[in-house]
Amino acid sequence: MLSSSKVKLIQSLNKKKYRQKYNLFVVEGIKNIKEFVFSNFLISNIYTTEPIPFMQEHQYQIISHEELKKISFLKTPHNALALVELPDTLPYSIQGIQIALDSIQDPGNLGTIIRLADWYGIEQIFCSETSVDVYNPKVVQATMGSLARVQVNYTDLKKLLTTSPIPVCTTDMDGENIYTSCLPQEAFLVMGNEGNGISEDIKSISNLKLTIPRFGKKQKTESLNVAISTGIILSEFFSQKEKI
Amino acid sequence: MLSSSKVKLIQSLNKKKYRQKYNLFVVEGIKNIKEFVFSNFLISNIYTTEPIPFMQEHQYQIISHEELKKISFLKTPHNALALVELPDTLPYSIQGIQIALDSIQDPGNLGTIIRLADWYGIEQIFCSETSVDVYNPKVVQATMGSLARVQVNYTDLKKLLTTSPIPVCTTDMDGENIYTSCLPQEAFLVMGNEGNGISEDIKSISNLKLTIPRFGKKQKTESLNVAISTGIILSEFFSQKEKI
Repeated sequence: MLSSSKVKLIQSLNKKKYRQKYNLFVVEGIKNIKEFVFSNFLISNIYTTEPIPFMQEHQYQIISHEELKKISFLKTPHNALALVELPDTLPYSIQGIQIALDSIQDPGNLGTIIRLADWYGIEQIFCSETSVDVYNPKVVQATMGSLARVQVNYTDLKKLLTTSPIPVCTTDMDGENIYTSCLPQEAFLVMGNEGNGISEDIKSISNLKLTIPRFGKKQKTESLNVAISTGIILSEFFSQKEKI
Repeated sequence: MLSSSKVKLIQSLNKKKYRQKYNLFVVEGIKNIKEFVFSNFLISNIYTTEPIPFMQEHQYQIISHEELKKISFLKTPHNALALVELPDTLPYSIQGIQIALDSIQDPGNLGTIIRLADWYGIEQIFCSETSVDVYNPKVVQATMGSLARVQVNYTDLKKLLTTSPIPVCTTDMDGENIYTSCLPQEAFLVMGNEGNGISEDIKSISNLKLTIPRFGKKQKTESLNVAISTGIILSEFFSQKEKI
């Protein structure tokens, strides 16, 4: 049985304020939980409607579907929900290809970009303090477990990028064509807000402005979604590395 | 004033059955509506809470915010909603880079792929009959107006691809590395269902199996989202074309 105060606590983890107060965030689904169990994250509690094959019985608590419904943030709850401790900030080194996100607001976009980073072996990303919180349940869900492997640092981007030992690359409609540019082997790729793009003070410290050329003849096409653009630009960096 | 029967009709356009019955679909937001007005689509009605600068007064009907709320499919309705006629199927030719989608189910993914096609100047895409309907309000919204420029054909994919004059490329975990493969100048790029990938009978007629290599050392990473994968593979085709 889940006590009503426990239910209340879990429901409150939808808000950053309470995640920080209790030092916890929510991961849903056995598949995703597994990624965190086999990582450096510390698991506080696991509530599940069925036994978890890779864990011992005393490590989780069986609850009913009705109870899971009460604490889940999903429309269709999975089989399990874990409370995971917020991680400590770890030291990092800036090398290879790095990603910085300037005020990304959409949880799905941030989650998808973390999944992309994980795919390309990028072990950390940097977000401006104005970006959506990565421990928001929607972001955690969208990372599909990749958050267990990619460290997300919230920081003053301008300060970080000003002292970057590798070139800072931003996107700009008037930037160089990514396909015909000779891209640097190491770079800080900065991606901007969904509506407003990259802020002016970050643009001003950019070493290389890049653009994904538009092949459509009709010039009306909306810009690409930021997660798609991140995927395409990252891909071109790795494509050029692979061809050397 | 919107009659209650009109409200009912518009609300019913959430379902494919009624879109086909009335031969109509819904486009929301003045920016998106503009794309359809200046296209070959036929506009049936426009309901708006404010005058539309690029149209004459008799071409739209002013309604209240409360009325718009009743007919909108968005959580936060925009300023206008248009009823647009379903288009006739137009003839097409298969050349250059083409996209075929095998049972894509998520409206956001289909919408994003249409936006991508538009960006890369691909004027038509092909969907299996089992794919989500492109005139579903969520798909239309996710295309951000690109649907006005990209023709979407629902067809028997196996039949279409069997007789394709250009190579059929599928994605496969054991496929060739897209970055080190010499990609064909013309190709039918087939992307599969979110959960199950490409169906076996389509795989069997593939001329070239491709994969986006995983750079992450830890082999647990989930596969990439299908819209992201489509973006990355399309980009690599155009990247190699640009470098010739």
